Amino acid sequence: MRNLRLDICYDGTRYRGWQRLTGVENTIQGKLEQTLSTILGEPVEISGSGRTDAGAHAAHQVANFHCHSQMPAEQILLELRRYLPEDIGIHSCREAGERFHARLNAQTKTYRYRIWNSDRPCVFQRRFVTVVPERLDMEQMKKAASHLLGEHDFSAFCAAKGKKKSTVRRVDAIEIRREGEELVMDFTGNGFLYNMVRIMVGTLVEVGLHQRSADSIPQLFGGQRASAGMLMSARGLCLMEVTY
Amino acid sequence: MRNLRLDICYDGTRYRGWQRLTGVENTIQGKLEQTLSTILGEPVEISGSGRTDAGAHAAHQVANFHCHSQMPAEQILLELRRYLPEDIGIHSCREAGERFHARLNAQTKTYRYRIWNSDRPCVFQRRFVTVVPERLDMEQMKKAASHLLGEHDFSAFCAAKGKKKSTVRRVDAIEIRREGEELVMDFTGNGFLYNMVRIMVGTLVEVGLHQRSADSIPQLFGGQRASAGMLMSARGLCLMEVTY
Repeated sequence: MRNLRLDICYDGTRYRGWQRLTGVENTIQGKLEQTLSTILGEPVEISGSGRTDAGAHAAHQVANFHCHSQMPAEQILLELRRYLPEDIGIHSCREAGERFHARLNAQTKTYRYRIWNSDRPCVFQRRFVTVVPERLDMEQMKKAASHLLGEHDFSAFCAAKGKKKSTVRRVDAIEIRREGEELVMDFTGNGFLYNMVRIMVGTLVEVGLHQRSADSIPQLFGGQRASAGMLMSARGLCLMEVTY
Repeated sequence: MRNLRLDICYDGTRYRGWQRLTGVENTIQGKLEQTLSTILGEPVEISGSGRTDAGAHAAHQVANFHCHSQMPAEQILLELRRYLPEDIGIHSCREAGERFHARLNAQTKTYRYRIWNSDRPCVFQRRFVTVVPERLDMEQMKKAASHLLGEHDFSAFCAAKGKKKSTVRRVDAIEIRREGEELVMDFTGNGFLYNMVRIMVGTLVEVGLHQRSADSIPQLFGGQRASAGMLMSARGLCLMEVTY
């Protein structure tokens, strides 16, 4: 069987997230599988590099799928662009080595979180930002972010699931900068727990509002969910890159 | 009576344009008037600097309205931001001189037209661009645009209305540039006829596709609608600035 790699982007606003759910139509994975199955005339299951949350976006998601069809990759690309809704885009479709697996082979992921840090209107960006009108103290946020770097037990930054899987992850880089009215935050790591980026951002925002101190961050490692900050809305979250 | 000036922006995607229409709920003017009337407790009629088409946007529209209410302008601003839908934003609300009229006093307007000139995905910009996947010859388009500058009879660039009003307008500047995948075109003039910007863009696009020559433009002045180019979609159109 052929193994094909898809590089994808989407505006997740009207979707229930990446992952196919039984009985739920509007998921990104479900929409892609349905469209590919129709194009190729055979049932297709795709594997994404990871799930994205309901309402979250991707500038660059990676997936792979196997098929029997001999349709050229370039034609699959054109057919996908023709039949997918306009909020799902395909950067490329190409042959992958038979062992390529979008999730298992992923080395690092970069997520961006965009905060509209202003009380001015944001009508054109509103689907892709979360509004925090109070001025955020970016220097304190950068200081707090530096404590999150490295390998830690991020249990406090994970929506409780009652499972016993490891909550240790490695965060390689956090970049925070202003762009006009926005505070843009890029997180790169070897993987992120469920809701981890959104809870890290919520914690950093509380630091930026002087509701918690930058140097209190290390106390959170290995702790309970309640000790870390708020869960930010998914609408500001965007998967930017997956490396292999 | 007080005279107040509003500076406004909107994502026009889900609206039937600026102008209030009897029996039609979703117009920008209608939504603003309805919200202001509720806030101020008196019927309010607003005048915009001009109409924008169904589906077109505004980064900066200007309007004014008269009212008896003594509510401070700053509070009206806050109430508007609170009650308007998230696709209509208010930059400012302030007292205007009693003779200020947003339409009659307008000196120049600048419209932007954004073309996504690529077959790559544009999911995040899709509401604000029109897709032309074929590569456009920007140098020929600039040459054609230079012929549109100045005062001319733009009858050929106006959707036929059967009226006998003057179709002479003055175009002061047309700037065309690439920004990433986009071709961005800014038009400044003393006023634009109905659909005039969208038809100018359609004509320039035909030049960019080598379907008509740049030097054929002057023959269009004073001519029939059919002699000029296609009407481009409203979704790429955005009112950027009104000067007084």
